[in-house]
Amino acid sequence: MLGCGTVGSQVVRLMHEHADDLAARASARLELVGIAVRDTAAERAPWVPRELLTDDAEALVRSADVVVELIGGIGPVRHLVLAALDGGASVVTGNKALLAAHGPEVHGAAKRSGADLYYEAAVAGAVPVVYGLRESLAGDNVNAVLGIVNGTTNYILDEMATKGLSFEEALAEAQELGYAEADPTADVDGHDAAAKAAILASLAFHTRVGIEDVPVTGIRDVTAEDMAEAREAGMVIKLLAVARRVTDNGTRGISVRVHPALVPATHPLAAVHGAFNAVLVEAEAAGRLMFYGQGAGGAPTASAVLGDLVAAASHKVHGGNAPRESTYAALPLLDPEHTPARTQVEIRLVDRPGTLSAVAGIYGRNGVSIESVRQTGTGADDARVTIVSHRSTEAALARTVAELSEDLRVHEVVSVMRVEGV
Amino acid sequence: MLGCGTVGSQVVRLMHEHADDLAARASARLELVGIAVRDTAAERAPWVPRELLTDDAEALVRSADVVVELIGGIGPVRHLVLAALDGGASVVTGNKALLAAHGPEVHGAAKRSGADLYYEAAVAGAVPVVYGLRESLAGDNVNAVLGIVNGTTNYILDEMATKGLSFEEALAEAQELGYAEADPTADVDGHDAAAKAAILASLAFHTRVGIEDVPVTGIRDVTAEDMAEAREAGMVIKLLAVARRVTDNGTRGISVRVHPALVPATHPLAAVHGAFNAVLVEAEAAGRLMFYGQGAGGAPTASAVLGDLVAAASHKVHGGNAPRESTYAALPLLDPEHTPARTQVEIRLVDRPGTLSAVAGIYGRNGVSIESVRQTGTGADDARVTIVSHRSTEAALARTVAELSEDLRVHEVVSVMRVEGV
Repeated sequence: MLGCGTVGSQVVRLMHEHADDLAARASARLELVGIAVRDTAAERAPWVPRELLTDDAEALVRSADVVVELIGGIGPVRHLVLAALDGGASVVTGNKALLAAHGPEVHGAAKRSGADLYYEAAVAGAVPVVYGLRESLAGDNVNAVLGIVNGTTNYILDEMATKGLSFEEALAEAQELGYAEADPTADVDGHDAAAKAAILASLAFHTRVGIEDVPVTGIRDVTAEDMAEAREAGMVIKLLAVARRVTDNGTRGISVRVHPALVPATHPLAAVHGAFNAVLVEAEAAGRLMFYGQGAGGAPTASAVLGDLVAAASHKVHGGNAPRESTYAALPLLDPEHTPARTQVEIRLVDRPGTLSAVAGIYGRNGVSIESVRQTGTGADDARVTIVSHRSTEAALARTVAELSEDLRVHEVVSVMRVEGV
Repeated sequence: MLGCGTVGSQVVRLMHEHADDLAARASARLELVGIAVRDTAAERAPWVPRELLTDDAEALVRSADVVVELIGGIGPVRHLVLAALDGGASVVTGNKALLAAHGPEVHGAAKRSGADLYYEAAVAGAVPVVYGLRESLAGDNVNAVLGIVNGTTNYILDEMATKGLSFEEALAEAQELGYAEADPTADVDGHDAAAKAAILASLAFHTRVGIEDVPVTGIRDVTAEDMAEAREAGMVIKLLAVARRVTDNGTRGISVRVHPALVPATHPLAAVHGAFNAVLVEAEAAGRLMFYGQGAGGAPTASAVLGDLVAAASHKVHGGNAPRESTYAALPLLDPEHTPARTQVEIRLVDRPGTLSAVAGIYGRNGVSIESVRQTGTGADDARVTIVSHRSTEAALARTVAELSEDLRVHEVVSVMRVEGV
């Protein structure tokens, strides 16, 4: 085992407590031969056997049949994982950053040596969505994946929605409770979700998608006011990882992105609260499937690691392999500009006859059709109007918003937000 | 392929439409070599190749690498499946009845010949809960499985709840719309759910559970009044397949049953509407997981079949095997009498001082503690009271209900229903 933090120490505990169960299921006793850590003298959970701690990760990797990598990040870990796979050790990892940045290299090493590569813990903790996409849906064609895959941001948005907090207040609360880190960048700016989106999209579409392919908008700009207005419109705001197969308008390809989105309050994803995760998959034959559960935390993530470990160990005994990276479809990633999206735009404008028709004209000239217009606030010379568009390209929507901003009757474009799940 | 009904014809269609995708994922082209049907002259979907139809299932089974069994039921199918496995052909089946009645025999045949046995389609259609329990959760210990696994009864209960229909009215509507069969016994009396419960419990607890081990109560006795009162109490009524590991009171074992149950309206299972299915799993490390999707229908069930088919085919090419039947834990099935349960009892009684205290006394004497008492209707000499108990054994609850029935102050025990999900 590489690393012995929150997840690692739970893996150690469960391997010990359930040794007999795991042996029966893997057809072999799982023997923990070493735990590589940076500081062997640091304090550990009481059940971690100190005699197994080592700071020589390279030697450990060379001697193990299965390497469980729970250090995370890229740097030296990339080298260790590649060394493990090159040496024929199976790898079980929860490292989304490594897979999203160096997926082809890591998968390639596994394929060359015939080793297994398992990574259920890399996406949505205990929620078995890697299994779901990689194995259960192997006979189907996925059209879309919509996921709440970051518990920190879901917790923050939930607190904003239910308690009327500002982003800053909710973040501070999440930090106090340990749901957000001191430096919350990776979570609140969407980078963590983007790595997971890349992994999910790769699996769903049998196409290589790296984190560099995923445009990201985080949740820093979501305001308490946005939340209140969403509620009024029967919606909630969620940070979504969205991967879609697009076949409109002769364009064929996939679109992958992470952004806050308005979701109808009746949509299954709207009911995902706190630090829970859920991934909704729309497949051609299966229709709508949802996987729901705890997306983080020591024990839930350890559950995913141990499921993978049993599979990898069982293959060592009986033969067989984890499914290999599947990239045969090689679908093109659509330029974000050509990606279809529905958007809600909120503007402050002059409340005078003809203004709304001018606004509608701007939409029409840019080829964006309007689904609904709602007046959300009134002032003599300062009305607020919320406009939801039908599906249109990002480029057309961007042109529309630019023209709105320049129109003299429009005081301000208050917010622009995507709408999903309708 | 054996059988070419609703699911089978969708499998044929998807195998044809997605031949290239399936070939890439299975590492081999899937060639449909024959379709055994009772009547080769009967009308078929236009895409079913008539030249592949045969009435000689036995010859077909002997010549195939993988047999997809979609006839259902036991009778001659049992023989065909065993013949396929004995001959080394992998079997993909959606046959819950066969597995729940003859699981050990069928799994044994697969193990003896080294063939794969896959059956995702046997439980909850497209919802990948067989994968989830058999593979994803292989490293965890499941404490409970609560499933809505029969779409027909869920549709009927949903119609009763939302439209105030009686059971008979909702059933007639479901039959008209094709959600229920002309003879609805297997669905409404819970036998279909019981077969699925047996399969889920076997997987969850690594223990042999057959359909004969599953006590069943169907939904025929659920009344419009029960529904209305459930709503008033913030609950809904669902037909649940419940499998639990029990370790209370020194008793250790599992309990598996199917019955209508009151579920809090805020519980994830309460949000499963119409013909959708969902299975909630509570595992020691993973916590609460939910799998949700379409539980029936041609295309969704075909999606599950094709996922299994890709796995089985891939093993034929690359080696490896589906996980074998895992029964090492061999947990005892608890006598239903010793199974813990929470129950809601509704009684009509004399509204006089001291009556409620007498009722509470009956609970107390039988060792059943009361969680809540609600007066739901009043009449001078005819009050309605709803009593929800804490967890207690079935035997103690049965004694309590018997004593209530005999008490002179109690006019009638109106209903007794289990409470789950709290």
